[in-house]
Amino acid sequence: MKQYRLAVVGATGMVGQEFIKILEQRNFPVSDIQLYTSDGSAGKKLYVKHQETIVKEINHESFAGMDIVFFSAGTNVSRHFVATAVRAGALVIDNSDAWRLEGDFPLVVPEVNIEDIIRHKGVIVNPTSPVIQMVVVLSPLHRVNPIKRIIVTSYQSVAGAGLTAIEELTTQVRQVLDGQPAIPRVFPHQIAFNLLPEVDVFMDTGYTKEERKLLEETRRIMHAPEIEVSATCVRVPVFIGNSEAVHIEFTHPFPPEEARRILSHAPGVRVLDDTTVSLYPQPWAIAGTDECYVGRLRKDSAFKNGLAMWIVADNIRKGAALNAIQILEEIIKRDWLVPGG
Amino acid sequence: MKQYRLAVVGATGMVGQEFIKILEQRNFPVSDIQLYTSDGSAGKKLYVKHQETIVKEINHESFAGMDIVFFSAGTNVSRHFVATAVRAGALVIDNSDAWRLEGDFPLVVPEVNIEDIIRHKGVIVNPTSPVIQMVVVLSPLHRVNPIKRIIVTSYQSVAGAGLTAIEELTTQVRQVLDGQPAIPRVFPHQIAFNLLPEVDVFMDTGYTKEERKLLEETRRIMHAPEIEVSATCVRVPVFIGNSEAVHIEFTHPFPPEEARRILSHAPGVRVLDDTTVSLYPQPWAIAGTDECYVGRLRKDSAFKNGLAMWIVADNIRKGAALNAIQILEEIIKRDWLVPGG
Repeated sequence: MKQYRLAVVGATGMVGQEFIKILEQRNFPVSDIQLYTSDGSAGKKLYVKHQETIVKEINHESFAGMDIVFFSAGTNVSRHFVATAVRAGALVIDNSDAWRLEGDFPLVVPEVNIEDIIRHKGVIVNPTSPVIQMVVVLSPLHRVNPIKRIIVTSYQSVAGAGLTAIEELTTQVRQVLDGQPAIPRVFPHQIAFNLLPEVDVFMDTGYTKEERKLLEETRRIMHAPEIEVSATCVRVPVFIGNSEAVHIEFTHPFPPEEARRILSHAPGVRVLDDTTVSLYPQPWAIAGTDECYVGRLRKDSAFKNGLAMWIVADNIRKGAALNAIQILEEIIKRDWLVPGG
Repeated sequence: MKQYRLAVVGATGMVGQEFIKILEQRNFPVSDIQLYTSDGSAGKKLYVKHQETIVKEINHESFAGMDIVFFSAGTNVSRHFVATAVRAGALVIDNSDAWRLEGDFPLVVPEVNIEDIIRHKGVIVNPTSPVIQMVVVLSPLHRVNPIKRIIVTSYQSVAGAGLTAIEELTTQVRQVLDGQPAIPRVFPHQIAFNLLPEVDVFMDTGYTKEERKLLEETRRIMHAPEIEVSATCVRVPVFIGNSEAVHIEFTHPFPPEEARRILSHAPGVRVLDDTTVSLYPQPWAIAGTDECYVGRLRKDSAFKNGLAMWIVADNIRKGAALNAIQILEEIIKRDWLVPGG
């Protein structure tokens, strides 16, 4: 089996580290792995397959001979270095925000639109985490009964804002319990025992960019520009895992039992739904696992042809690192590594 | 000014204690206050207007000579004792679930439907907390542009489940930070750093009773049986304050600036909405205050005539104790204390 030379940009971040862990867990065929950073953590040693590997500062010579480069070091780093990696002949999976709303790089969730990879030009974009878990669950339903409208409200963990956000929640919780003021650094206000309806920047429409991405990316990934989407994204004091309350209007009536049957066979989906024993997805319980979990499935009381449901996934795994690796696995399986190949 | 003889049933609970605090803060005209409990805390001493007052075990002789009785000791206590209090000649404000979905006692939010008190038969029901804050904000908008549909998802604090729930969150947070397992007692699963899409019991429809109340009570209070409502209610690791993401379809277009103008003059409402400085309501910031706060006001991207917004209020004050006292103040002002009076 062919082995690949791989670089991880943002290797010391939460998503970078999870990416390396998943490569190992899934025995991804790697012959060489290079770890890069841009945040001053160069020189740090990380273990990859029990081998000490030194993290290096990224530069324009970092990508020579690489087959695959995974970027998860923020928008600026991607804008600055992705073109260099492509010119060096590598396939790039970009987990930044640089080309999610603009550009024509394919935005891919393997369970939903793997066919979009065929037109890749060397860069494939990993979608925003709350979008990934939602389309994995909604896409199999949309195929049998087209979706007209989605109202989605999120309950997003601090992990999406990185390791410093995890530390901030921990520190602030201790400060509050000790009767001390909680000092915000990563988030605009205290996150401990609080809620912030602000994820990513605000736009002129009054929506945040995260909320806008739930509209734009959902349409692009599902190839459904006609779907109306409205989102409210909220940061909650949870470490890992994004949750979503989703209320959907379909074209035709959708009996909940029929939806449950379809979802119980859908790739990447796990139904956890038995209200008689309080069984439903919880972020604490599913952190560290791979599936998109769905529960609280019921006929919606506000839409004639509606369903309501509760969707939870690990935002660092399926919402970021795992989705990227699944894209790579599909590409390798199909021998699509070379653009137009 | 006439002074009233008042009894509080459930005086040692969170809502009961807040009720007593607000009576003092607002100088409610009380000549005598009796404190009752049913939870084994009889004998406990509480201070009311700097006077030590002993909490007594409730019984069927507790209400002799009382003008007003406030019940906040759970559904069973209300079902067992409210009729006795009414027969003893008292006006009852019931903060339990006993008659929220059934019966024809008026369900009242003073800013919205104070006129419904006129037909009271001795019992007035305090609505469910997430309903109160939502109708205070939506009612002034509905009056100028009828609402057709509401999708509301809640972020409800543990305070709604009482003092033991506050203790449970505190204890579990410490357990998690210390690397210990968190033991659930009040809630069905761990609430620290977690989310539970289960508030109140599940019904056959797949909705919880709390979600059902957001539909039924909203229609009753707003006198609008035609409004479609769908809710997802979620318990979050926040001590006090309920938050709601609300997406609304109106009959006609509703410019957000027009809604903001109306809300800035609406009784009981405070607009906190300036995204340029991350100003929006947060439960931590507004706990202990009286208003229903609204922010994140914007044109909804999924409904042609829609608005989206974020509503937060202290669920123990406006969501419970304060609303009850505001009802009493209106009754006294109008001299409606005696049924049919």
